[in-house]
Amino acid sequence: MELGLVGLGKMGGNMRQRIRDAGHTVVGFDSNQEISDAKDLADMVGQLTGAPKVVWVMVPVQAIDPVVTELAELLSPGDIVIDGGNSRWTDDTRRAAQLAEKDIRFVDCGVSGGVWGLENGYALMCGGDKDTVDAVMPIFEALKPEGEFGFVHAGKVGAGHFSKMVHNGIEYGIMQAYAEGYELLEAADIVDNVPEAFRSWREGTVIRSWLLDLLVNALEDDNHLAKIQGYADDSGEGRWTVEAAIDNAVPVPAIAAALFARFSSRQDDSPAMKAIAAMRNQFGGHAVKGAEDPSYATPPTKH
Amino acid sequence: MELGLVGLGKMGGNMRQRIRDAGHTVVGFDSNQEISDAKDLADMVGQLTGAPKVVWVMVPVQAIDPVVTELAELLSPGDIVIDGGNSRWTDDTRRAAQLAEKDIRFVDCGVSGGVWGLENGYALMCGGDKDTVDAVMPIFEALKPEGEFGFVHAGKVGAGHFSKMVHNGIEYGIMQAYAEGYELLEAADIVDNVPEAFRSWREGTVIRSWLLDLLVNALEDDNHLAKIQGYADDSGEGRWTVEAAIDNAVPVPAIAAALFARFSSRQDDSPAMKAIAAMRNQFGGHAVKGAEDPSYATPPTKH
Amino acid sequence: MELGLVGLGKMGGNMRQRIRDAGHTVVGFDSNQEISDAKDLADMVGQLTGAPKVVWVMVPVQAIDPVVTELAELLSPGDIVIDGGNSRWTDDTRRAAQLAEKDIRFVDCGVSGGVWGLENGYALMCGGDKDTVDAVMPIFEALKPEGEFGFVHAGKVGAGHFSKMVHNGIEYGIMQAYAEGYELLEAADIVDNVPEAFRSWREGTVIRSWLLDLLVNALEDDNHLAKIQGYADDSGEGRWTVEAAIDNAVPVPAIAAALFARFSSRQDDSPAMKAIAAMRNQFGGHAVKGAEDPSYATPPTKH
Amino acid sequence: MELGLVGLGKMGGNMRQRIRDAGHTVVGFDSNQEISDAKDLADMVGQLTGAPKVVWVMVPVQAIDPVVTELAELLSPGDIVIDGGNSRWTDDTRRAAQLAEKDIRFVDCGVSGGVWGLENGYALMCGGDKDTVDAVMPIFEALKPEGEFGFVHAGKVGAGHFSKMVHNGIEYGIMQAYAEGYELLEAADIVDNVPEAFRSWREGTVIRSWLLDLLVNALEDDNHLAKIQGYADDSGEGRWTVEAAIDNAVPVPAIAAALFARFSSRQDDSPAMKAIAAMRNQFGGHAVKGAEDPSYATPPTKH
Repeated sequence: MELGLVGLGKMGGNMRQRIRDAGHTVVGFDSNQEISDAKDLADMVGQLTGAPKVVWVMVPVQAIDPVVTELAELLSPGDIVIDGGNSRWTDDTRRAAQLAEKDIRFVDCGVSGGVWGLENGYALMCGGDKDTVDAVMPIFEALKPEGEFGFVHAGKVGAGHFSKMVHNGIEYGIMQAYAEGYELLEAADIVDNVPEAFRSWREGTVIRSWLLDLLVNALEDDNHLAKIQGYADDSGEGRWTVEAAIDNAVPVPAIAAALFARFSSRQDDSPAMKAIAAMRNQFGGHAVKGAEDPSYATPPTKH
Repeated sequence: MELGLVGLGKMGGNMRQRIRDAGHTVVGFDSNQEISDAKDLADMVGQLTGAPKVVWVMVPVQAIDPVVTELAELLSPGDIVIDGGNSRWTDDTRRAAQLAEKDIRFVDCGVSGGVWGLENGYALMCGGDKDTVDAVMPIFEALKPEGEFGFVHAGKVGAGHFSKMVHNGIEYGIMQAYAEGYELLEAADIVDNVPEAFRSWREGTVIRSWLLDLLVNALEDDNHLAKIQGYADDSGEGRWTVEAAIDNAVPVPAIAAALFARFSSRQDDSPAMKAIAAMRNQFGGHAVKGAEDPSYATPPTKH
Repeated sequence: MELGLVGLGKMGGNMRQRIRDAGHTVVGFDSNQEISDAKDLADMVGQLTGAPKVVWVMVPVQAIDPVVTELAELLSPGDIVIDGGNSRWTDDTRRAAQLAEKDIRFVDCGVSGGVWGLENGYALMCGGDKDTVDAVMPIFEALKPEGEFGFVHAGKVGAGHFSKMVHNGIEYGIMQAYAEGYELLEAADIVDNVPEAFRSWREGTVIRSWLLDLLVNALEDDNHLAKIQGYADDSGEGRWTVEAAIDNAVPVPAIAAALFARFSSRQDDSPAMKAIAAMRNQFGGHAVKGAEDPSYATPPTKH
Repeated sequence: MELGLVGLGKMGGNMRQRIRDAGHTVVGFDSNQEISDAKDLADMVGQLTGAPKVVWVMVPVQAIDPVVTELAELLSPGDIVIDGGNSRWTDDTRRAAQLAEKDIRFVDCGVSGGVWGLENGYALMCGGDKDTVDAVMPIFEALKPEGEFGFVHAGKVGAGHFSKMVHNGIEYGIMQAYAEGYELLEAADIVDNVPEAFRSWREGTVIRSWLLDLLVNALEDDNHLAKIQGYADDSGEGRWTVEAAIDNAVPVPAIAAALFARFSSRQDDSPAMKAIAAMRNQFGGHAVKGAEDPSYATPPTKH
């Protein structure tokens, strides 16, 4: 089938190739004309010949609304827009309503797989009406990994991005677990070769996983991660997961811990810990850096 | 080669079979005579004909010291004892010293794999002198999974159980991450079929793992885990991991969260939350169950 | 001065008395006619004779918007509405804008003090223009505790409820700290008389506080809190604090822990812990309740 | 009565003065001869004329065992040693047993109050036999704050330090709660004057406390804590509290969060967060600092 694809970055560019490899026609648009198949969105839509026209939007979060708004003008009733970006699921309903005013249909689709997706396939979590999802199914089939896994029609509009959000929340927690274990092994000075220990875990253990494989790769390149700063961005889904958990009164201590660890990793100095140091100074009467518990106040006496 | 194997339960029994399948001779002892190859430990040791004699101890934690003490009497200088149980790594040094008094050698070996180990192989993390480990290597080869992973000689005595402990600590955190995501999906009433979402994650996602596969199995049998009580034991390694982290000033918030969640799961009522309820009652002046924040104290007024 | 006061529940009723005790005129309205000074809001507004008219709204969260909307019709340009309820600070801006359309002024005021406020005074945290806050100052003076503390004009509209929200977030964390300490003392079976230990802490310690005093009161009535269920509601501010922290990339692990503990306290069974139990069952091959770690799988052998 | 006092640092020195002010005789010993009343421990013991002789040990943790061992030689049956230092409660039993061999009696006493103790009195939590505690009571009376609070005989030997340990664990959690609230107020840019908000909380609020008073003091000196580094030591009791909680299967998420925050505050770079960054790099294919979630991989496209 025919697909318009907006956004040909690392994700979109590889997705174009994987869909074409499956025998479909893709008209890609990107503001970078060197990689674009169309000179603008209107041109892209114009190159699609069938009906309904199907357009996959794969752009950064801040660009989604402008693209959707422009597509609402360019497309016709019955056409389909798929948002494959990192949207918050609560935005899906709004965009679906905006497009529905023109009788344009909407599917939200969370996409996982990163730079490995071209080769391994992309895991897809989508939300929308069954008929609309079915209409896009050949594209989903092309993108997803081979075999019986890697695709779910999770529910109505928003359910796709909600699933992807929870997926990423879980990802935060899992990564934090490996990271804590790594730090402990490094700190304890008992295990001679930490990368070897992690490497051994790739088979036979309870914790074998793809993320473990990736961490082992990284440790093989850089045994003590000396080239890497302990600084971790967060992309939104972790925050939204904790917020959704709060809205539903669901305790998520491990995922929240992972999120907070990332926040801390980006601080040069912690205002909270300044307050701790200030209080210790107040009750212990000590110099601030190296301030001691009051009960430690006795200077060492020797006998 | 020849191995004495003490303890033929779910783990030991399967290990005997896997080692025998690899062509080695195993003389197993268990207090359950129906499955035992020897009538007592002395008989087991007596049936081993070579030198050095090698004995693998695979018994519950509380039984390890009595077995090691008895073996110290039965074995000869140069013989080797392997502790494959769930020992705390700090106990390894003590036991190694106890055996060293008789010139008996010691290897500690953390074993992962559970009921799947017979088929998939057991991941092994061992600690001890290189020569001693090398002497047991044919047995390790028989037990470990095929391929290049699943075995590590992690360092000196204690390093094996330390690695296994950290492995299990990581396992706690990973399981907690999946569990929190599961609860959020169940609670939010957005995703129609939670088991389907989990199932889809088995390929192409960042969070694919063996534990995910297991959770999907469980959800296929029991879609809402209705037959299962939210009650989780802990076996020691999670506690030791947090304690080792504290000893090394390593922050482990996600692993600790997982441990505390298990503690909470076993409480019928929480004394801490009684105290919370009591304080809210004191400052808000409300009935205890359903006690409200003081600022909510105004009874609803209608207009 | 003269004040209209909407809502005469536990908070509003006591506040009316405290303001009257300070010599001001209060026309209170409540849907409960037995305690109301006016038959409806219009009557209340009509009984206020001065200008500008000042109305304090002290009603449950869900009733604030209807009351504000009705007041927007009844009041005149220059009049002042104070929201003393538990509003989320983000709602203040919206309500201020709604009233500003009629040139009615708005102050948001977080109120702390609960049932003790009548006697001790209420801590007030307000937000709004300086002129507007100054115009209400005599009422604030009447309500606040004696002395130099207990009142802050925190900033523009919203800053009052934001401060109160953070106050309550801190309150969650402090209560959780006492609660955890209480549970540990109860569990450890070392301290003979836990209420006595807490009682002793009321003077000379680093942790002396009003909340401690309240917990001691509760423990004197009920030594082991046997009459109280470990069930704690949450009123919104704790959730909003964590959400505001996430919006600002501020790590709040202790406050989040306190919030999650309350969520857990209200669950009969934990879906997350069902998932944990299910995974342990899958890899360990054990019965679910009492499912064991795979490495514990060996049945006890005796020697 | 008469007291020997070993260790005349910030704590011990002030305690000597407070006890003398109450009319008792104190023979203090310190290795710093300028402040010492005796030239060595033997001289100190020799200057005590009554029976039983009572000696209070107020030295750093690492010095306690040598002092106790020396006192075991110098004292006589029936004499009493009080350990007022920051001992782990598990050490008390051992020291009591060591002294009991010579029929010397032992009391453990946790002391809180820091530099404020001279003026306000010290909170005391002690453990030991009732007769022994009673014999020291005049000293306890001199040290404790006026009024009915500030002293508890918590139970047998060890119960005093256990109570003090839990006190400090609670202290960690409370300080962390204030610190998190402080950071949020600073970060959110809504409240104009954060120190003013904290200052207002000193009366009428639920969170009023001595620690709050201290933090307000600090904020008055340094409005944004600009002179203070966000670096916090920990003195042992926080660690022991979490370990005791683990031993008793008590969930202590807030106290553990406070402890871990201190650990993090002392790290220049976090090995755990290096591992997080490394994994994100692996799956996202991005540069490490600023590595993005794979789904963010699409470079911005403009329209």
